Amino acid sequence: MDLETVRTVSTASVRVAVDAMGGDYAPLEIVTGTLSWARAHPTDKVLLVGIPERIAEVAGGSLPPNVEIVPASQVVEMDESPALALKAKKDSSIMVAMDLLKQGRADALVTAGHSGAGMAAAVLKLGRLPGVDRPALAVQMVTETGPFVLLDIGANMDSSGHNLYQFAHMGSLYAERVLGVEKPRIGLLSIGEERGKGDLAVQQATQLIDDDGSLNFIGNVEGRDLVKHMADVAVCDAMVGNVTMKFFEGLAGFIFNLWEKEFRGSIRGKLAYLLMRPSIGRIRTLFDYEKMGASPLLGVKGMVLITHGSAKRRMIEFGVEAGATAARARIPELIADAFRGQSRHPAKQVE
Amino acid sequence: MDLETVRTVSTASVRVAVDAMGGDYAPLEIVTGTLSWARAHPTDKVLLVGIPERIAEVAGGSLPPNVEIVPASQVVEMDESPALALKAKKDSSIMVAMDLLKQGRADALVTAGHSGAGMAAAVLKLGRLPGVDRPALAVQMVTETGPFVLLDIGANMDSSGHNLYQFAHMGSLYAERVLGVEKPRIGLLSIGEERGKGDLAVQQATQLIDDDGSLNFIGNVEGRDLVKHMADVAVCDAMVGNVTMKFFEGLAGFIFNLWEKEFRGSIRGKLAYLLMRPSIGRIRTLFDYEKMGASPLLGVKGMVLITHGSAKRRMIEFGVEAGATAARARIPELIADAFRGQSRHPAKQVE
Repeated sequence: MDLETVRTVSTASVRVAVDAMGGDYAPLEIVTGTLSWARAHPTDKVLLVGIPERIAEVAGGSLPPNVEIVPASQVVEMDESPALALKAKKDSSIMVAMDLLKQGRADALVTAGHSGAGMAAAVLKLGRLPGVDRPALAVQMVTETGPFVLLDIGANMDSSGHNLYQFAHMGSLYAERVLGVEKPRIGLLSIGEERGKGDLAVQQATQLIDDDGSLNFIGNVEGRDLVKHMADVAVCDAMVGNVTMKFFEGLAGFIFNLWEKEFRGSIRGKLAYLLMRPSIGRIRTLFDYEKMGASPLLGVKGMVLITHGSAKRRMIEFGVEAGATAARARIPELIADAFRGQSRHPAKQVE
Repeated sequence: MDLETVRTVSTASVRVAVDAMGGDYAPLEIVTGTLSWARAHPTDKVLLVGIPERIAEVAGGSLPPNVEIVPASQVVEMDESPALALKAKKDSSIMVAMDLLKQGRADALVTAGHSGAGMAAAVLKLGRLPGVDRPALAVQMVTETGPFVLLDIGANMDSSGHNLYQFAHMGSLYAERVLGVEKPRIGLLSIGEERGKGDLAVQQATQLIDDDGSLNFIGNVEGRDLVKHMADVAVCDAMVGNVTMKFFEGLAGFIFNLWEKEFRGSIRGKLAYLLMRPSIGRIRTLFDYEKMGASPLLGVKGMVLITHGSAKRRMIEFGVEAGATAARARIPELIADAFRGQSRHPAKQVE
């Protein structure tokens, strides 16, 4: 599919399947957020997957015409082993939702459930796209000048240089088509800025991306470069990506709490707070992680997005929107096109 | 050496060698910071290693009686390859300073120079302690309730589970003796909180630390747990540690800049700034990274500490203090004792 076709379809209506039973606040927050999105997007469709009575109960009254409940009798709980749960619970909401994607009845799937189970179900039910060795979970992170994409944040352990090379391609497509960045700058997240400095996987990935030549590769980026928006896509092993993403969450929250305590702790602070209210609003908006919506799992045969287990209605709404946007951009099809003809362990390629 | 002995020697005077020529602001800032420390610690001794005329020039006037200049005619520049530079420059300040440690003329060495060259010189000149497979570079990071130790942040690439296991022991000793934490809580920095969840190295390290049983092991910690001070020692591969540390630097700076811009951007902001001045001071103090001083390289036969290439006099002063503290605590000797009898690839041990 070429760029023109994509642009043509980019306003097409889409059907998003939502796992209504997954997440700490399911089904109430999931259903509420999803319905809110559905009402705002009457030409799109939503499939709420789960136990019908429980969904109806929290939906409260009649559903909008573009919302359909798809029954699933089981739920994968947050503390279950993904492998065992998926085997034992064929009629779980996540498995039924994956079936909708597989059958072409949905264009994207959003889940706040057990993320390990979500990723395992995607690989199991949908499978990897031809040429893709491993899928990668990506996340959008904030900077003052716009978001960047960080991947892998948790789909794989011990990724090879070849895996990182493929993540770079998938991340580049995602940044281009979903974030709207022309020629996204691709960086390998590593320990030093010199090209190729890092562990074996980074060295190999550098070689592969260099040989390939089709990406806008800027070499290595360091941890401190991320917030400076030096790359549009930062590629790394999941250990690095996951720790970085969660450290961001923790540190940003920590710093805000410090300020809040100071604002609340004295009369001077309270007065300063009143004066700074618009500023605080601006800063909060920038760090509004609920807006990230959901993380796309790139490289499987279908558009699967995984959001926070603790997501509430507002984040779910952004998550369904992220799913719809990625579906409209036809990300899996684009990745399939890019990887067509890739052998499992090529030295180069991707024309 | 037992705890009592250590406590007895812990106020002993020490001799700290400082690489006067290494760092972006050498020799001026290095010498100035070092002299300031020396004046405040008249019973300790400082050896300033470098080109005597250049040191004398920036020292300005007579040196304190506890400061000695040790001549070295060469300098390893920041952009040189460590391996080549160390081979070609036998009389470089970093190599001469290492010699002082090796000959027992100094108890610790502090350098702001090329960190790769510093680590390479340490391994080359001093060698690893018996039983230690790889040294690890550690750093102290801040939380609201006190510092924790993060390692490895850059001494090795592709560390194995056995390496992480050894880092855990070295980090534990450092936290106990330098930070004064009793039974430091040791965590493996990983992708999920379930024990053993992570890559192969984390799984193997979990097994080794469990089998060993001598550490206060709390299992995995995640990125968001770090700022909550859930571990006193967070152990990880250098890719994870280095990116985390530098991301911290970048993110903390980014958030402060946002606030500063808001404080400066309007009359309201300026007024709020005046009201919040004591608060801002408190928060700045907490994030005062210059106080971290210098990062200890654990596992080599001598107390080597590496500080920021961009360190100025104040950070150098804290760096020399960190060196003196680690020397007083006799960290290399403690590690040697702990690893005595360890084979290169033991399944367990360290009594």
